[in-house]
Amino acid sequence: MSTLREVPAEAVIASHQLMLRAGVMRKLGNGLFVYLPFGLRAFRKVENIIRQEMDAIGALEYKQPVVVPGDIWKESGRWETMGDGMLKARNRLDQDLVVSPTAEEAFTAVIRDELNSYKQLPIVAYQINTKFRDEIRPRYGVMRGREFTMKDAYSFHATQESLDETYDKFAIAYRKVFKRLGLKVIPVRADSGAMGGNGSEEFMVESVIGDDTLILCPKCGYSANTEKAACQPDVATDKNGNPQVETNLQIEKVACAGVETIAQMEEFFKMSAKQFIKVLIYKVYNSELDLSSAPGGNTFKKVSGGEGVPHYPESFFAVAIRGDLDVNEAKLASVLKASEVELACEDDVIAYSGAPHGFVGPVGLTKLPLLADESVMVQKDGKWVANLHDTVTGGGVADFDNLHVEPGRDFVPFMAADVRTVVAGDKCCNCGAEYYSTKGNELGHIFKLGYKYTKSMNVTFLDENGKQQIPTMGCYGIGVDRALASIIEEHHDDNGIIWPMSVAPYQVAVVPVKYAGAMKEAADKIYDELTKAGVEVLLDDRDERPGVKFKDIDLLGIPLRIVVGEKNLPNVEFKNRKTGDMQLVPAEEAGAKAKAFVDAELAALNG
Amino acid sequence: MSTLREVPAEAVIASHQLMLRAGVMRKLGNGLFVYLPFGLRAFRKVENIIRQEMDAIGALEYKQPVVVPGDIWKESGRWETMGDGMLKARNRLDQDLVVSPTAEEAFTAVIRDELNSYKQLPIVAYQINTKFRDEIRPRYGVMRGREFTMKDAYSFHATQESLDETYDKFAIAYRKVFKRLGLKVIPVRADSGAMGGNGSEEFMVESVIGDDTLILCPKCGYSANTEKAACQPDVATDKNGNPQVETNLQIEKVACAGVETIAQMEEFFKMSAKQFIKVLIYKVYNSELDLSSAPGGNTFKKVSGGEGVPHYPESFFAVAIRGDLDVNEAKLASVLKASEVELACEDDVIAYSGAPHGFVGPVGLTKLPLLADESVMVQKDGKWVANLHDTVTGGGVADFDNLHVEPGRDFVPFMAADVRTVVAGDKCCNCGAEYYSTKGNELGHIFKLGYKYTKSMNVTFLDENGKQQIPTMGCYGIGVDRALASIIEEHHDDNGIIWPMSVAPYQVAVVPVKYAGAMKEAADKIYDELTKAGVEVLLDDRDERPGVKFKDIDLLGIPLRIVVGEKNLPNVEFKNRKTGDMQLVPAEEAGAKAKAFVDAELAALNG
Repeated sequence: MSTLREVPAEAVIASHQLMLRAGVMRKLGNGLFVYLPFGLRAFRKVENIIRQEMDAIGALEYKQPVVVPGDIWKESGRWETMGDGMLKARNRLDQDLVVSPTAEEAFTAVIRDELNSYKQLPIVAYQINTKFRDEIRPRYGVMRGREFTMKDAYSFHATQESLDETYDKFAIAYRKVFKRLGLKVIPVRADSGAMGGNGSEEFMVESVIGDDTLILCPKCGYSANTEKAACQPDVATDKNGNPQVETNLQIEKVACAGVETIAQMEEFFKMSAKQFIKVLIYKVYNSELDLSSAPGGNTFKKVSGGEGVPHYPESFFAVAIRGDLDVNEAKLASVLKASEVELACEDDVIAYSGAPHGFVGPVGLTKLPLLADESVMVQKDGKWVANLHDTVTGGGVADFDNLHVEPGRDFVPFMAADVRTVVAGDKCCNCGAEYYSTKGNELGHIFKLGYKYTKSMNVTFLDENGKQQIPTMGCYGIGVDRALASIIEEHHDDNGIIWPMSVAPYQVAVVPVKYAGAMKEAADKIYDELTKAGVEVLLDDRDERPGVKFKDIDLLGIPLRIVVGEKNLPNVEFKNRKTGDMQLVPAEEAGAKAKAFVDAELAALNG
Repeated sequence: MSTLREVPAEAVIASHQLMLRAGVMRKLGNGLFVYLPFGLRAFRKVENIIRQEMDAIGALEYKQPVVVPGDIWKESGRWETMGDGMLKARNRLDQDLVVSPTAEEAFTAVIRDELNSYKQLPIVAYQINTKFRDEIRPRYGVMRGREFTMKDAYSFHATQESLDETYDKFAIAYRKVFKRLGLKVIPVRADSGAMGGNGSEEFMVESVIGDDTLILCPKCGYSANTEKAACQPDVATDKNGNPQVETNLQIEKVACAGVETIAQMEEFFKMSAKQFIKVLIYKVYNSELDLSSAPGGNTFKKVSGGEGVPHYPESFFAVAIRGDLDVNEAKLASVLKASEVELACEDDVIAYSGAPHGFVGPVGLTKLPLLADESVMVQKDGKWVANLHDTVTGGGVADFDNLHVEPGRDFVPFMAADVRTVVAGDKCCNCGAEYYSTKGNELGHIFKLGYKYTKSMNVTFLDENGKQQIPTMGCYGIGVDRALASIIEEHHDDNGIIWPMSVAPYQVAVVPVKYAGAMKEAADKIYDELTKAGVEVLLDDRDERPGVKFKDIDLLGIPLRIVVGEKNLPNVEFKNRKTGDMQLVPAEEAGAKAKAFVDAELAALNG
C-alpha cells in the first residue's frame, strides 16, 4: 500500500488529491490511470453494486470488444459525425477500427443478428467495460480521463409502452445505485422542458468543478441542464418597463462606429437591451436539417450518398436573439441537428452577413439561413408572430445600426426555436418560480433513443401479425470512475477519505499499537473473528509509530478503526471514521460489535 | 438465449462451432467477438478461478489502462521492435498511443514510481484485462482473435533467489488453475534445453489446430516447443553410414545446372544429404547483436541514439546447416536477438551471396555474416571445430556446386549456434531417447525476464546497504478466451458442449416436459431448493416440445439435467451430461442429490 504525504501539484480537487495520496490510483499518461490494489477494491464494489441493480431489473450482461470495426460506425453514420473525440486506428490490413467511446452500434449490430420475433422483445442488454474518449484537456484525475469504465445498457422494444416501462425501471434502479454508493444525485430531466419529445434524465452530483450548469426550481423541483433548460417567456419591455409597441416608422440607419457591445448600445441609444436584436453568425458542423429551401442552402456541400444520414459537413447560420440574452450552443446544435456549432471567424462573418461582428443585422441576409430565438419571433398556427417591436439591430454594414426594425415586416427567419441560455432568476417553465443554479457533474444518463440506430442499421422483427417492424431503443449509462471520484468528493475531510461502507476497500482496520505480545494476540483474534464473519479487515502489522499508523488509516478512510493498545486491554478502542466517535469495547465483544456496525451501515445504504 | 441449429460456415473447429451454436459468443468483426450472457457466465468463472489462484499466492490485482502512452514503449525500445502486431494510434493532440498487447512497460513504469527500498520487494502484481494483437489472419474464433482478455502478472525482485521462489509459486498455481478448469496441459520448459539461461515454461494443450509443434520425450518427460527444442548432436556420416573424414583435396567446382534441391543433389552426387552444407540467406529485422566486426556489418544501418536498445532495423545473414536438416526461424531469430527473420528475396540472395538460391555456398562470403548451425561447426575452448567433412556446397555462382569443402579450412563463420528444427525421431538432449511430436496451443507462459525492462526503464531500489540496485523481473500470462475455447475443445461430443462443473454457466438444468400443473409445481420446487442452496440453475420454462428442450440443454452442456415428466412423478429423471447416465430420483430428494452431485464434481476439480 502506497500512501503519499505530499499533495501532488497536478491534483487540484479533493478526490484527485486523495486518490493519489491514499494509493487508489496513479497516472500512467495524460488522462490514463492505473488502479492500485487498494483502490481497485473500491472500484470493483462500485461495479458490483451497479451490476446487482442491473441484474435485479432483468438486464443481461454482455461483453463487447473494446476495439470495434469502423464499419458499424459507418453504418450508423457516426463515423463522420462523432468528431475528433473518437479514437480511430487503422490496422496493418488497412481496416478501420475504433476504440469504443460508447456501444450503441455494437449492441445494435449484435441484436440485429439475433432478433427475429416480437416474442424476443424487450431485450435489455448491458456491459461494464472500457471506453475511450480523446478529451482535449483531461483533468481532475479520473473525473475527466481519456480511458474510463462505463456501465452502458441498451434496450430494444416492440412498442413505445414497452420502452417507457423499461425506462422507468432504469430510473428507479439508478436511484438505488446512487443511494447504495452514498451519493446525493440531482436527477435532471430534459423532457419536462421545451425540448419535449424523447425522455431523458441525467443524474448529476453537485460539484464546484462541474462540467454542467444546472437550472433548478425551488418550488416544483424542475431541474435541467443548462444545455437543455427552458423557461417561461418574459414580456419584452422598453427601458421604462412598458410593453414594446409595433412601429410604423421605416428603418433608419444610424452611424455608430465603435458602438459594438450591448452595453455600449444601451449607453449610446439610451434604451434597454431588451429592445435590441443581437445577431450572431455560427459555423455549423454536420447539420442533418434539410437546407435546400433555405437562403444560401444550396451553397453548402451536402453529403447524402453512401452510408449514414444526409448531412451538411459545414454550413453557416445567423441566429437572432434578444439583446439581453445569450445563445446556448448546445441547444442550438440540438435544434440544428448538428454535431457541433461555433462562432464563425471574422472573415466568414463578413462574407456571409456583409458586416463585421457587432454590426451584423437580421435584415437582408441572403447568403445563409436565419434562426430566430423565440424571444424574437415564434410561429403560431403557421404564422410568424413577433415578440419584440421597434427594435435596434446591427445595420448589416460596418459602423451602422438600424433603428425601428420590425420582425416579420423587415425580416422573416428561416426557422424559430428556443436557443436561449436559461439562467438563475428566469421563471420556471412549469410553475413560474425563479430558478436557482448550481454546477454539477453527470454520473449517469438514461435516454429514450427511439429509432436512430435501429433505422440506420436496419434492425427489424416480425410483429404478432407477421409484419416487419423496426424496434425502438433506449440507452442507459453510468460512469464507474467518475462515480468513485464523486464518492470521495462527497465523503472526505482534511484527514482523508471517509468511505461509505458499501464501497470501502476494507470495512474495518485493526491497528495494534505494537504488533507484539498481548496486543498481537488480541489483534489477531479480532482479525480472525471478523474475517470468519465475512468482514473485510485490514490488519496494520507494520512496525511504525502509532501516530503514523493512525494518520494512514484516517487517510485510507476505513469506516471503523479498532486500536489495540496495551493500556486499554482487555478493552480496545473503536473509532468511527465518519463521526469521529470513540468508545472502549471489551476485546471479547469487539468482533461481534464491529460486525454489527458494518451490517448496520450497509443496511442504511442498501435499505 | 440464442442457440443455432446450423453450423456457421466460417467455424472449422469444434470450440468455435459450439461457441456460436450454444450462444457463448458472436463475431462483431474480424477477430473481434462479443460474449453473450450465457457465455459470459463461463468466461467470468474462468477469470475468477485464475484470480483466486493469483490471490492465493499473494499476487495483488491492479488495473492498467487498455490504451497506454507510446512513450513507455519508446523507453523500453519495443516501440520499434514489436512489429505491426501492435496497434498504434495517434490522437488529436498528436500523442502516440498503444492498445496494449501486453503490459511489461506499464507495470514497470508504475512500480518504478512506487519502489524505493528492498523492504518493498518482492512485488507481485497482476491484472485481468483486455489486450489487442493485430493478427494478420484471425481464425478459430476466440482461439486466435485480435482482441482478447489476458491475466498478466509481473514480479519484481531484489535477488535471483527471490525471483526463483516466486516463479516456482506461479508454476504450481498455474497447474492448479488448469486442473480446476478441467484442462490437461503439457508444461513445456525451455530452460532444460540448449537455450539455457532464463527459466521459462509454457503451458500447452494438445490441439490439431495448434500454433505450436511440441517435442516430447517419452522417457524422461522432456518437453519443448519446436521453437526452442534442442536435441543431442548426431554424428554426421556418409551415405554408407561411416563417419566423415577430413579431406586434403582442394575445392573442386562442378557444373550442375538444374541441380538445386537437396533431393536432386543426392541423386546427382550419389551422396547422403548429411554430406551437404545448405546455405540460406535471411533478412533479419531489428537484430540487437553487435555486427560492427562482422562481414558486411558496416553496410547495415544501425539505430543507436535516443531511446531503446541499439539495433539494426534490417540486416542479412547467411545460415549454413547440414543438408538433411531445416533451419528453425524462431530459434534463429532468438539467437540473432531479432524481432523477426524471413528468407531473403532472390534479388537480395544474389546481391549478398553472388549466386541464386540453390547455389549459395559458405565459401567467400564477404557481404554478410555467416552463422553456422552446430551441425556444421561449433566453437570449443575458443577454437572452431568442424562437425562435417569433405562436404558438397553451393558453388557461390549460378549452376555450380563445390566438392571437398572443409569447414574451418575453406570458411570460418562469424558465429555458430543451434538453429536446427528438432523433429520426432531426434534424440532427447537429456536422456537420448527418441522424441515424439504433437501440435499444441499455448494457454499460459511463465518466464524469468531478468533485467530487460528494469534496465531500459531505469528502475532502481536501495538495498540493505543503501546501495542503488536494479530489480530483476518475472512475467506470467494466461489467455482467458483461449482457455475457455480449449475447455470446449477438450469437453464436447456430437451433441454439444460438456462443461466441467467449475466453469459451467449453469450447473443444473431443470426441464419440465410441460411447464404446467404438477410438473410446474415440482420443477419450481426443485429450482427454489437448489437456488437457495447456492446452486446455479437454469429452468427451461419454454413452451417447446420436450425433444427441442433436451437437444438445447445438451448443446448448452449443462452438467446435470433434471427432467420433470408427468409419467415419472413422484420421481424425476437425472441425466449426467458427461457420462450419459440416467436415473430416477424421488422429486423430494432431487434438490439434495443434485446439490451433492455439484459439490462432488467441484471437489474433484478443485481438490
